[in-house]
Amino acid sequence: MSDRKPVFLVLGAGAGIGGNAAKRFAKGGYHVVLARRSNSGGLEEMVRQITDAGGSASGQLIDAALPGSIEDLVEQVEANIGPIECALFNLGAQIGNRKLADTSYKAFEMGWRLATFAPFRLASALFPKMVERGSGTFIVTSATAAMRGNAGQHSHAAAMGGRRMLCQTLNAEFAPQNIHVAHVVIDGPVDAPDTLGKMLGDQFDAYKASKGADGVIDPSAIAETYWHIAHQPRSAWTHELDIRPFGDTPWWNDN
Amino acid sequence: MSDRKPVFLVLGAGAGIGGNAAKRFAKGGYHVVLARRSNSGGLEEMVRQITDAGGSASGQLIDAALPGSIEDLVEQVEANIGPIECALFNLGAQIGNRKLADTSYKAFEMGWRLATFAPFRLASALFPKMVERGSGTFIVTSATAAMRGNAGQHSHAAAMGGRRMLCQTLNAEFAPQNIHVAHVVIDGPVDAPDTLGKMLGDQFDAYKASKGADGVIDPSAIAETYWHIAHQPRSAWTHELDIRPFGDTPWWNDN
Amino acid sequence: MSDRKPVFLVLGAGAGIGGNAAKRFAKGGYHVVLARRSNSGGLEEMVRQITDAGGSASGQLIDAALPGSIEDLVEQVEANIGPIECALFNLGAQIGNRKLADTSYKAFEMGWRLATFAPFRLASALFPKMVERGSGTFIVTSATAAMRGNAGQHSHAAAMGGRRMLCQTLNAEFAPQNIHVAHVVIDGPVDAPDTLGKMLGDQFDAYKASKGADGVIDPSAIAETYWHIAHQPRSAWTHELDIRPFGDTPWWNDN
Amino acid sequence: MSDRKPVFLVLGAGAGIGGNAAKRFAKGGYHVVLARRSNSGGLEEMVRQITDAGGSASGQLIDAALPGSIEDLVEQVEANIGPIECALFNLGAQIGNRKLADTSYKAFEMGWRLATFAPFRLASALFPKMVERGSGTFIVTSATAAMRGNAGQHSHAAAMGGRRMLCQTLNAEFAPQNIHVAHVVIDGPVDAPDTLGKMLGDQFDAYKASKGADGVIDPSAIAETYWHIAHQPRSAWTHELDIRPFGDTPWWNDN
Repeated sequence: MSDRKPVFLVLGAGAGIGGNAAKRFAKGGYHVVLARRSNSGGLEEMVRQITDAGGSASGQLIDAALPGSIEDLVEQVEANIGPIECALFNLGAQIGNRKLADTSYKAFEMGWRLATFAPFRLASALFPKMVERGSGTFIVTSATAAMRGNAGQHSHAAAMGGRRMLCQTLNAEFAPQNIHVAHVVIDGPVDAPDTLGKMLGDQFDAYKASKGADGVIDPSAIAETYWHIAHQPRSAWTHELDIRPFGDTPWWNDN
Repeated sequence: MSDRKPVFLVLGAGAGIGGNAAKRFAKGGYHVVLARRSNSGGLEEMVRQITDAGGSASGQLIDAALPGSIEDLVEQVEANIGPIECALFNLGAQIGNRKLADTSYKAFEMGWRLATFAPFRLASALFPKMVERGSGTFIVTSATAAMRGNAGQHSHAAAMGGRRMLCQTLNAEFAPQNIHVAHVVIDGPVDAPDTLGKMLGDQFDAYKASKGADGVIDPSAIAETYWHIAHQPRSAWTHELDIRPFGDTPWWNDN
Repeated sequence: MSDRKPVFLVLGAGAGIGGNAAKRFAKGGYHVVLARRSNSGGLEEMVRQITDAGGSASGQLIDAALPGSIEDLVEQVEANIGPIECALFNLGAQIGNRKLADTSYKAFEMGWRLATFAPFRLASALFPKMVERGSGTFIVTSATAAMRGNAGQHSHAAAMGGRRMLCQTLNAEFAPQNIHVAHVVIDGPVDAPDTLGKMLGDQFDAYKASKGADGVIDPSAIAETYWHIAHQPRSAWTHELDIRPFGDTPWWNDN
Repeated sequence: MSDRKPVFLVLGAGAGIGGNAAKRFAKGGYHVVLARRSNSGGLEEMVRQITDAGGSASGQLIDAALPGSIEDLVEQVEANIGPIECALFNLGAQIGNRKLADTSYKAFEMGWRLATFAPFRLASALFPKMVERGSGTFIVTSATAAMRGNAGQHSHAAAMGGRRMLCQTLNAEFAPQNIHVAHVVIDGPVDAPDTLGKMLGDQFDAYKASKGADGVIDPSAIAETYWHIAHQPRSAWTHELDIRPFGDTPWWNDN
């Protein structure tokens, strides 16, 4: 039960952007539903932290790549917890740089399945309900690869480029129906133990140190911007924005 | 004297975005300096409204097209009021749609002078001081014409396209020096009596009615987003974002 | 046998862009391989037209959506005809405007399979051979939907956005290896009986008449531009360009 | 007299792109008018080379920054030589990288005057005549700085960003009147003795050698692409394209 709180659903609720967004929306009065693929212990701990801080939260493990999984999640949350007022799609599909010869068909398809098809499925399941209720917000965490395709990013960039255009088609159809769709280009490294941290392993701390103070994006700052976007009055909605550390070169500039 | 309050300078402080941003920053604890070209009565009234609400404000008439005017303003504010922590460049140069044959050299140059050269002058006067202090924020209100050039927009689009690239070069040099530069693409009509209101005259109310509820951007909502941007932690800065009413077609979509 | 002629492979060799490109490259001295999904009679006729005009051509029916089909085609052409010097990926996935509720998962996936995954498969099969030979050209016919997502284009825009980013990642890895990758944004209706013609049926002629003289893109003009791109010296390669009728509004402008 | 040949006017006819375009159009049957700021000896030599090769050419020194200069040139050419069918605006305003503190107001204004205002003046003088004649082509050599603003490029990027938007507004108004406007993004170093050569001086040869074979753009290849664009049938016009050496990183990719 959410005590009639509005519901915030996070797909991809790790310890980085997803978890911090959940904390921010819980603090703001939402019941947050944290969905992630693995680590039930971590998930429970995250729920506990939020409830200990006086917030309202629940968690669910979900394999977004499985047929029906996202759709079932939406149905269950809506039936058992309450209407989802804001959803954050926070799954990525970064697999590191791989040459074409090392990018298997399976990897290329999995990129699409998680990064393009999954948000399409979430929107397909959720937007009819939001339309019926007359409002809703859909925030999509995205990446520089949605803006330009670098060497080695065949799977990731193709998936993210598709994601960006999808966000635009969703916005084109649903913004006039009072559903706010936002595509957020995270153009820098995020201090996220579950993604960048896992990828870098032992070298994560050294990497962060090498970037200097505030050289890696604080995910709680992203969460604050998500909160802001989600609460812009509808006469002044933002569809796309970029976020990067002050010392980082934007994607469009030469390094 | 600003009682040690940080200073927020608005160039283009009419009753729309500029005035509302001033109110928002005054509410947030800044001393605001409102600069505009004409209507000293309106300017005084705006200052009074802010001070009546408990804020700190001062006003100054300035013709930004005049050599030295912006530079003098910066010097005077810094000398007499305090260090400018955040500046909003809010002057536009929209002159309506004119065919090439009806776009005089003078109009084309004036577009550049107000919309491209003036923010360059403001940055040239202000950024050295911000660099010396180690921080600062520079927000530029911009327009769709910075993203694409429509028919009849020769002067405006050329000026705004220059403005956008200037914001990128300023960001490239100064973001690593802790100066936050933001280019905000206002992609819709603003409920601004001094600009759109003047342009439409008697038809302003009918126009707003024709757009329906929340069909015209509430400038106080833009002000709120400016406040948010100005206070993002430096590990998570936004350089560019768009703002439009929920029911409006984004510039990249077909009408 | 191609008499040692260089080989030009067209995937999507209908009577529009694909067929005209084949004619142009045959005229220029290539042996052209025309591959399309259906209508063996039309395919034979197209081959005959080219050979009657003194060119060298062969045809093959292929269902690009089938696993292995594109890969087998590349192997067979390379083994039996000769090294593919230039390949044109000319398959689209436009299914007309459909609301989200009317865009099935199957349709969304098929869009990706034909418009994003298929060119990835072609590149994966072909580029290693081109790299070994030290040169090659890969032209991709693309669409406005690769640049922005309009209402109703969920499947098409997501697929084309992925395609554009893929072309960039391919270019990033392979241009330095002397493989020219070009992404061509066809931003207007093409006088193509097999695609637009089929979609409009009886109304095709009326549609063309309504657009006025030269109001619909002549596919032989596109073919000429493809020829030009394919033969730019490598010190001066073009990666992306747009093509539209003189009277049409570019995608970035208001209609 | 041009013996009824169509006229091709080049503003910025140095030994790089401008001169090579002139040669290409002369070879194709145009009378070419070469206009440049200085070096009458070099200009005469260029005219002689073209006429020696059987082409038709004339030259004129012009300071494009002077009021009336471009306008007079257009009038004189049209009166004394013939109708200008195609004009190439080939003046740049690159002054090298300069920090904001080192970018004088004068330099910033000169950038605009040469790179934004000058093409506006050329279009203002020429387009009415083209409209009256019912056709024309206007090609603008542009630069990466029109797409994104790098550090140190305050003057250049602001000017080029304005130029790009101007090309779009010109295209929006005049393409439907059968005037082809093309904005060509030269995204790499050009083998041009008068510009890059002068800037690098003694180090020009070493620089070219460091880029490897075909590592610097051959301006005659650009000229060939200009020729192609200028002769696209009007059902299939290109407005924007990029050109770079095969081994160079596109502006949108990481170096």
